[in-house]
Amino acid sequence: MDETVRRWKGVCAYDGTGFSGWQSQAHGQAIQDVIEARLARVLAAPVRIHGSGRTDAGVHARGQVFHFDAAWRHAPERLAAALAAGLPASIQLRSLRPAPAAFHARFSAQGKIYTYHLHRGDADPFTRPFCWMRFLPLDLAAMEAAAAHLRGRHDFRAFCGRGGAPEADTVRDLRRLELVQRGRRLRVTAEADGFLYKMVRSLVGALVAVGEGKLTPAEVRAIRDSGRRPAAIQTAPPQGLFLDRVYY
Amino acid sequence: MDETVRRWKGVCAYDGTGFSGWQSQAHGQAIQDVIEARLARVLAAPVRIHGSGRTDAGVHARGQVFHFDAAWRHAPERLAAALAAGLPASIQLRSLRPAPAAFHARFSAQGKIYTYHLHRGDADPFTRPFCWMRFLPLDLAAMEAAAAHLRGRHDFRAFCGRGGAPEADTVRDLRRLELVQRGRRLRVTAEADGFLYKMVRSLVGALVAVGEGKLTPAEVRAIRDSGRRPAAIQTAPPQGLFLDRVYY
Repeated sequence: MDETVRRWKGVCAYDGTGFSGWQSQAHGQAIQDVIEARLARVLAAPVRIHGSGRTDAGVHARGQVFHFDAAWRHAPERLAAALAAGLPASIQLRSLRPAPAAFHARFSAQGKIYTYHLHRGDADPFTRPFCWMRFLPLDLAAMEAAAAHLRGRHDFRAFCGRGGAPEADTVRDLRRLELVQRGRRLRVTAEADGFLYKMVRSLVGALVAVGEGKLTPAEVRAIRDSGRRPAAIQTAPPQGLFLDRVYY
Repeated sequence: MDETVRRWKGVCAYDGTGFSGWQSQAHGQAIQDVIEARLARVLAAPVRIHGSGRTDAGVHARGQVFHFDAAWRHAPERLAAALAAGLPASIQLRSLRPAPAAFHARFSAQGKIYTYHLHRGDADPFTRPFCWMRFLPLDLAAMEAAAAHLRGRHDFRAFCGRGGAPEADTVRDLRRLELVQRGRRLRVTAEADGFLYKMVRSLVGALVAVGEGKLTPAEVRAIRDSGRRPAAIQTAPPQGLFLDRVYY
């Protein structure tokens, strides 16, 4: 009977609607709480899981990664099956495997990919919970030009939200910031070595401000250089955002 | 001030999750109730709307049609906008226009198109509320062969659910019964001049029974001819079903 504690790596997807976000909070139900509660029942012991990062209330994930330490004397697949079976329909365990002891969901991450989903005009009831509907025309060429000023290694302090833990270093390498249009849907893909608090939603807010003619691409570059966020940049609402992938 | 009562035709989409179906019931909230309540506020008078047919609890629609009679002295677009603005995110008004006095959402219908969405294996949290997950392998060729026995003009009494209003005439013209596979998704499209109570979900249950090897295509033909429903045919669950279109 092997009761050795080892490290586990899990990948999960969730519909963030109605959750207070990934991380446990004083109020509301966090995705972390649900997974921990189920794991505690399966393992018959309290467990603390560590995510690759927080996602805010209402934000979704296709590939959030977490780790935890636990002793398990059966086959690994059985722990995966037991955890998966007890989760609500809004949370899916995509994989759960033993990981090297040094693996850390947050500190081992090499990068993350988020997508943000915009919809031009009214969306149907199946799409509404997963997009930001915009009713003004969007100038895509201007948005592309603004994205070009944002891609690359920059100090992104002008593009983060208040309320997060203060970050000593606000320089990030935005490896990809890509717009893909399909019909009335417009998808923004953002990939970086790491993201500041509400950074993707602030970048999307800036792109939409440009698309709607409230800012020019050159002004976005100036904002980036100044490090000061103007009122013209909204933080895009959470329901359009998906954490797609964390890579190691 | 034109206070003439006239007939209106509306088209709506809804996420049926959590509703007790289209039609008002003693318990639960029906989509019809929500639209009538909002219309009553806009028109400052009670209104009864008439759908093209019922959809059961948990069934979705992309193009449900309804009619009602009301006096309205402003532009038609303003009634549409006022109704649309007051509906919850789960119900979308797609169009609302004056219709000929003889138009009847149910009796004028020439046909309807439903789609049913199957998923092979576990679906992600965004797809789960809109599909039926099947975990056994499905023999698509056998399902196609069974569908061929169901298409056309037949007495479908073996493929309807108990509990609906008894139908004197159970002959329907199933103009289309089509399977389209895309990755792990399998879509069944059914088009007919009309459908019996729970008919689409019973047809899908029969196709799945064939796909899983519990019935042969020839047995499906024999069931069709016998008019008697065997226990091997489940009624597919409501969340995979969409009323896509009603045509006139």
